Amino acid sequence: MKIAILGHGVVGRGVDEIISSRVTGVEVAKILELPDRLCDPRMTANFDDICSDPEIELVVECMGGLEPAHTFIIKALSAGKSVVTSNKAVVAAYFEEFAACAQEHGAALLIEATCGGGIPWIAGIEKVRRIDRVAWFSGIMNGTTNYLVDTMVKTGRDFADVLSEAQSLGYAERDPSADIDGIDVKNKTIIAASVAFNVACTHDIPASGIRNLTMDDMRMFEKHGRVVKLIGFGAQRDGRYAATVEPVALPNSSLEAHVPANFNLVTLEGDTVGELKFYGQGAGSLPTGNAMVQDVLDFEAGRRPAYDFSAGLTYDPTLLVGDYVFRTAVAPEGSTRYEDGAWLVRSVTAERARMLYDHALENDPTSFFARIPQEVEA
Amino acid sequence: MKIAILGHGVVGRGVDEIISSRVTGVEVAKILELPDRLCDPRMTANFDDICSDPEIELVVECMGGLEPAHTFIIKALSAGKSVVTSNKAVVAAYFEEFAACAQEHGAALLIEATCGGGIPWIAGIEKVRRIDRVAWFSGIMNGTTNYLVDTMVKTGRDFADVLSEAQSLGYAERDPSADIDGIDVKNKTIIAASVAFNVACTHDIPASGIRNLTMDDMRMFEKHGRVVKLIGFGAQRDGRYAATVEPVALPNSSLEAHVPANFNLVTLEGDTVGELKFYGQGAGSLPTGNAMVQDVLDFEAGRRPAYDFSAGLTYDPTLLVGDYVFRTAVAPEGSTRYEDGAWLVRSVTAERARMLYDHALENDPTSFFARIPQEVEA
Repeated sequence: MKIAILGHGVVGRGVDEIISSRVTGVEVAKILELPDRLCDPRMTANFDDICSDPEIELVVECMGGLEPAHTFIIKALSAGKSVVTSNKAVVAAYFEEFAACAQEHGAALLIEATCGGGIPWIAGIEKVRRIDRVAWFSGIMNGTTNYLVDTMVKTGRDFADVLSEAQSLGYAERDPSADIDGIDVKNKTIIAASVAFNVACTHDIPASGIRNLTMDDMRMFEKHGRVVKLIGFGAQRDGRYAATVEPVALPNSSLEAHVPANFNLVTLEGDTVGELKFYGQGAGSLPTGNAMVQDVLDFEAGRRPAYDFSAGLTYDPTLLVGDYVFRTAVAPEGSTRYEDGAWLVRSVTAERARMLYDHALENDPTSFFARIPQEVEA
Repeated sequence: MKIAILGHGVVGRGVDEIISSRVTGVEVAKILELPDRLCDPRMTANFDDICSDPEIELVVECMGGLEPAHTFIIKALSAGKSVVTSNKAVVAAYFEEFAACAQEHGAALLIEATCGGGIPWIAGIEKVRRIDRVAWFSGIMNGTTNYLVDTMVKTGRDFADVLSEAQSLGYAERDPSADIDGIDVKNKTIIAASVAFNVACTHDIPASGIRNLTMDDMRMFEKHGRVVKLIGFGAQRDGRYAATVEPVALPNSSLEAHVPANFNLVTLEGDTVGELKFYGQGAGSLPTGNAMVQDVLDFEAGRRPAYDFSAGLTYDPTLLVGDYVFRTAVAPEGSTRYEDGAWLVRSVTAERARMLYDHALENDPTSFFARIPQEVEA
């Protein structure tokens, strides 16, 4: 089978390397690169060279960003070529359009690498869904923020200090907003909700990050046997669904509390299979490349994921209700005291909590908040 | 597709229920049961009724035990019918014969449900192996012993007390030996090693259990920040492999230390994907039934696992070397003091540790031992 790779950066090179050294029967015939980077006979700067090549069955998109990735994916699918992508931003934004286009032209869209790096998470959800309804999913989906929090816990150093070191080591981006403000996890949560619940999750789900997390916050939660993690979460019930991204102060008895370094841990609950968890490297050239090559091999073996969002689930924020702690100068509406300078608001929706946090930030731009789930029941 | 179920006990009924209520396109056409239990028009007490039925493509074996399961599986495969089984004892004992028979007659052997209940562990290993070599695997593979240890930790009650309660609740067998002596985990470890390393693991691997574990032992390890779990482990390097089952005093920083109740957590390490962990219900009618139905659906979708053990890896116990603590009356050879009445032996193979434990048991039948791995590096 002949395939093309779009973009020969870190991930594209990972895919190329894994296929050439470990996979037989798949040939990387063409690679799309910028005109000033054509250093390999397979490379072209013209996407039409790839799209019009009848021998190429599948296109592996490793460019990232919304455009031209969106246009190229639509063109490839419209030409009947299947697409493997790791681009969570473009899939979260255009999932419904991509799925419809793939279906119309008999092509497949494979998106394992958009969520959880090398973890077989998307294929895992799809496998579970052959038998079960997925009631909810939840997890640590961003390695950078987990690394930041884990390093804070292990060294006692403050957020800004750890972030700046992570940036100098290349573990965090120069502009870390996508990670620390929860945007990356928001995209992954939208994709996971769409696959798990069979819905085009187009609602602007609440998403918060850990930019304002301090070592004092960590110590406060530690007193209560908790550790803060950035969590993506989604649930469905009776034809309704909801999803959110927020810091959660998890009990130390949970597995999630012990996820080290830049690892991810994602969970789903199915009717008959019960709770399943998947853990692994959520990013990196080889794990992400591995996930894309797994999609290529699945396609070769005949797997054709079909995303049908016609069930039309309703977004209902009342599905997600919890207790929240706000560390902020002025007591939020309806709160009681949690600790010095921190307040507890019980039984509010994730959307209401995010609204209270926005108010808190107006009075005190250093405010932080986190959900505090009940102790895990064993 | 028409299939047959052999045995309509807890697991067989689970498979029947899941297929009839959740799966379209698969029909349970015949069920093998004992002559005095034929209460359903699909039931027969004669295996030849099933084996000679040309419409039945696949046989789901839920009987357990070595015979007649072994004979029926060979007959079914020889008749070109594929086999799905949850029977770890029979697969561990006859894996090589089953694999060869399946290959010879163009049938498939699917064994997801032999290890880890509803966890996609065997399919997970096979997927990883399409790209990576599996350097090692490790994990909590027995729900009963995890429940016993977890309940001891949470209640402070002693082993015998917790076991007797678990037996009265039906969580543990009347004869608990297979669980508490590590025989169940030994079978699962042999199967996982065979799939992960492509070797017919016929060596009698060392296997120890937790029968002699006391609350005092738990408290001793707790002082060192550790908790005891029963672990199956296998590794390969340079054409050699080894595997073992033994109690391990894991650091509290590990995820494994926090696995609650009767859950399982299994890990593998691949070249490009890195460390992957899978967590879920390791037993029970619905999770195990789910795993068997997943195998049925995989078969229907064209998956044909091929087990080729011809590479001929050598068994080499020196691949597994660790430090061990023995709580026993007489100091073992080469040991130093660990705590009052407990001794540390450094850098010995799992086989040597098991031999030292046998010696210890001769002097003190209440002896317990556990490996103490280094702190998890994050």
